[in-house]
Amino acid sequence: MNKENRRGFIKKSSIMVGGGLMMSSLPWDLQPKPIAKENVKLGLIGVGLRGTEHLKLLLNRDDCKVTAICDIDKKAANNAQMMVEKTGSKKPHLYTADEMDYLNLVARDDLDGVIIATPWEWHTPMAVAAMKQGKYAGVEVSAANTLEECWDLVNTHETTGTPCMILENVCYRRDVLAVLNMVRQNLFGELIHMECGYQHDLREVKFNNGQQPYGGGVEFGEKGYSEARWRTWHSVYRNGDLYPTHGIGPIATMLNIERGNRFVYLTSTATKSRGLHNHIIKHGGDDHPNASVKFKLGDIITTVIKTARDETIIVSHDTNLPRPYSLGFRVQGENGIWMDINQSIYFEGKNREPHRWESADPWLEKYDHPLWKQMANKAIGAGHGGMDFFVIHAFIESIKRQINTPLDVYDAAAWSAISPLSELSISQGSAPVEFPDFSRGKWQDKTLQFALKGDFK
Amino acid sequence: MNKENRRGFIKKSSIMVGGGLMMSSLPWDLQPKPIAKENVKLGLIGVGLRGTEHLKLLLNRDDCKVTAICDIDKKAANNAQMMVEKTGSKKPHLYTADEMDYLNLVARDDLDGVIIATPWEWHTPMAVAAMKQGKYAGVEVSAANTLEECWDLVNTHETTGTPCMILENVCYRRDVLAVLNMVRQNLFGELIHMECGYQHDLREVKFNNGQQPYGGGVEFGEKGYSEARWRTWHSVYRNGDLYPTHGIGPIATMLNIERGNRFVYLTSTATKSRGLHNHIIKHGGDDHPNASVKFKLGDIITTVIKTARDETIIVSHDTNLPRPYSLGFRVQGENGIWMDINQSIYFEGKNREPHRWESADPWLEKYDHPLWKQMANKAIGAGHGGMDFFVIHAFIESIKRQINTPLDVYDAAAWSAISPLSELSISQGSAPVEFPDFSRGKWQDKTLQFALKGDFK
Repeated sequence: MNKENRRGFIKKSSIMVGGGLMMSSLPWDLQPKPIAKENVKLGLIGVGLRGTEHLKLLLNRDDCKVTAICDIDKKAANNAQMMVEKTGSKKPHLYTADEMDYLNLVARDDLDGVIIATPWEWHTPMAVAAMKQGKYAGVEVSAANTLEECWDLVNTHETTGTPCMILENVCYRRDVLAVLNMVRQNLFGELIHMECGYQHDLREVKFNNGQQPYGGGVEFGEKGYSEARWRTWHSVYRNGDLYPTHGIGPIATMLNIERGNRFVYLTSTATKSRGLHNHIIKHGGDDHPNASVKFKLGDIITTVIKTARDETIIVSHDTNLPRPYSLGFRVQGENGIWMDINQSIYFEGKNREPHRWESADPWLEKYDHPLWKQMANKAIGAGHGGMDFFVIHAFIESIKRQINTPLDVYDAAAWSAISPLSELSISQGSAPVEFPDFSRGKWQDKTLQFALKGDFK
Repeated sequence: MNKENRRGFIKKSSIMVGGGLMMSSLPWDLQPKPIAKENVKLGLIGVGLRGTEHLKLLLNRDDCKVTAICDIDKKAANNAQMMVEKTGSKKPHLYTADEMDYLNLVARDDLDGVIIATPWEWHTPMAVAAMKQGKYAGVEVSAANTLEECWDLVNTHETTGTPCMILENVCYRRDVLAVLNMVRQNLFGELIHMECGYQHDLREVKFNNGQQPYGGGVEFGEKGYSEARWRTWHSVYRNGDLYPTHGIGPIATMLNIERGNRFVYLTSTATKSRGLHNHIIKHGGDDHPNASVKFKLGDIITTVIKTARDETIIVSHDTNLPRPYSLGFRVQGENGIWMDINQSIYFEGKNREPHRWESADPWLEKYDHPLWKQMANKAIGAGHGGMDFFVIHAFIESIKRQINTPLDVYDAAAWSAISPLSELSISQGSAPVEFPDFSRGKWQDKTLQFALKGDFK
């Protein structure tokens, strides 16, 4: 389909909705599916800092039970077990024997789903094992590290029919969902250009003193603790956008990626690497053994993605330098633009003054997404400003209704693929590299399933 | 030179300056050169809106005279002539016969320099003609449209020895110069990543009613007025970053481009084209003849440049959509980051709170550049917040001292080359394309000459 035909196709498949606004015909006001299963039994693989946060959310709910827990860190596993016991529930079975013990957890016949919050390199093998055993797989971000792993996820899902959800919490951030609401109500018009990223000074995550999770020393690997034990290695031997999904997830839901649109290709460019070495020298001295480690990861990775509908997306990865946290969202269409860095918005003809930014706040309030309107009370107090509540909620409610998850295996594959493709592009001097079509053409016809109005109330 | 050697080289060639800060050894506190010529005689080519602004600045000065004016628009030329007369100066000679009459202007033997503010396609031929006649060429942005034109500028300069200055006013914006000052005083540490762009809704510049410069209709080309007569055509037949210098100029001065550093390659990616067509339909209707014009220019062009010192630069071009004006500056180094969109800054260990933005204002005030400190009174009231004063001032003062201009022909070539290289990359599916080395290796040794402390007070 050439560009003109494609545009015609998109126009034809649009319908008029309330207020005369145009929107995609993909329905997002479906009525909720009936509940098929009142009580959900879950297993947790990985109960470090992140897994424990999920556990807390699960223990707050009266529609699920945690019956099995797996972690090679016995202390962490025991701690999680005690947390469950304290709520008066039955002691969950522990799997702590070795790195492969998770296979015994997923093989249990009393589980409906598994939540995976382990080091990155285990995400795909564990999600694949869960799907093969017919368990809904909820997998932390990124879901995969290589293109082969992306295909493993997709192929296993297609073979088994079991859903796999990427647990991308930022898709549920309140401002992000309000902007998605504005996108779907056509305030931006046709979307043109987007920006996002992971801009987070992780130096005290990548290095610590082996006893606390954040900072206090410049150790990593075997001498490090928590994420520093495994995450930092990726900065030693990889050069690319290692962590794209917090940024691209929300943008992908707005662009209907894998649902009428897809990523076509990207280019990626890395800067020199200074931040991690500087940090070691500053806090560990020139003579610290880690002072001689060469970090392959450029301090800032800039990726530009082109979509099938001819939008562009800039994705930034910036984790080694001193800087305030920002996911750097920008959503720009025919009629207006939102940026989160200056908390501002502009809609032609709707703002008070032409050519002038306005505070985004009244717009975010007015277009607060139905999910937040109805469940803010439950979400407040949950991790990361409430968004953790929603991502777990969506996973559980999907299991209860025995339907596909709102973020699915194709989202997991398409978003996670940015990392290996970015590495490939950088290794080839920023050459453009094509995204595999993980849906094998189905992206053209798949309907919306994320953050629908009537679902999961 | 490989990366490690290069880094060693940079370190070795650095010196300690006041306060124990490291900075490049390239001197920027030179004493002013002596004045060789008290009174400068100038010719103006192009006295439309932009040329007239320059003329006003010249007429405010007591160290120069405008003795010749060229424009094919006789009304504009007469108007400019009257402006000069009103100041009590001798009537400048007019060159209005035809498009080639500028050759007669540059051939005059009473001129020291020429200021060129004509449509883009005339910039290089006119600057080349001026240099060939030994006249300092001050040329509006961009200086060139093609790689061949970039080489024409460089080769003519090298053959004739005559300086050519790209009149990039934004290099002199007060906040930009304060940040340059911070860069040179090493507050950011080694620079890592930069962003900039031209994000300016030009729809009412590209289209008007043929009688006023801005809006009121959807005409362009022969039926348009002022810039709409010629500028809009570039959006019809070109797809690339058409106007990179307002963004890249300031960034290039901070990165010492062409003075120890250079642009190595870029990738460029274009979105679909919607904004200009939409504007015609909205204000001219479906039946307006321009409704059938196909605009080749994507609404947003994203270019990523890699430098010889392994920094990256994102350059955005965004002129067809409704949006507030922003040049989108971001300067990021080992120790901190400045962004203009949120008017904020962060320096590790210097801000009150870690991981939190601070208002940039006190920093911009503290590091106000010496040029502004000393000449703000003269600059205030000049165009574009005073920066127009400085760019013309630098041009005149260079002629008075008979020295090279602070922004020179290599800057003009390197910055302007972004447009044709961006077009080339887009036409090849975002393939990386290399910058020619316009200095033929001299970039490695050339010393700083822009915004030096002691010059031009």
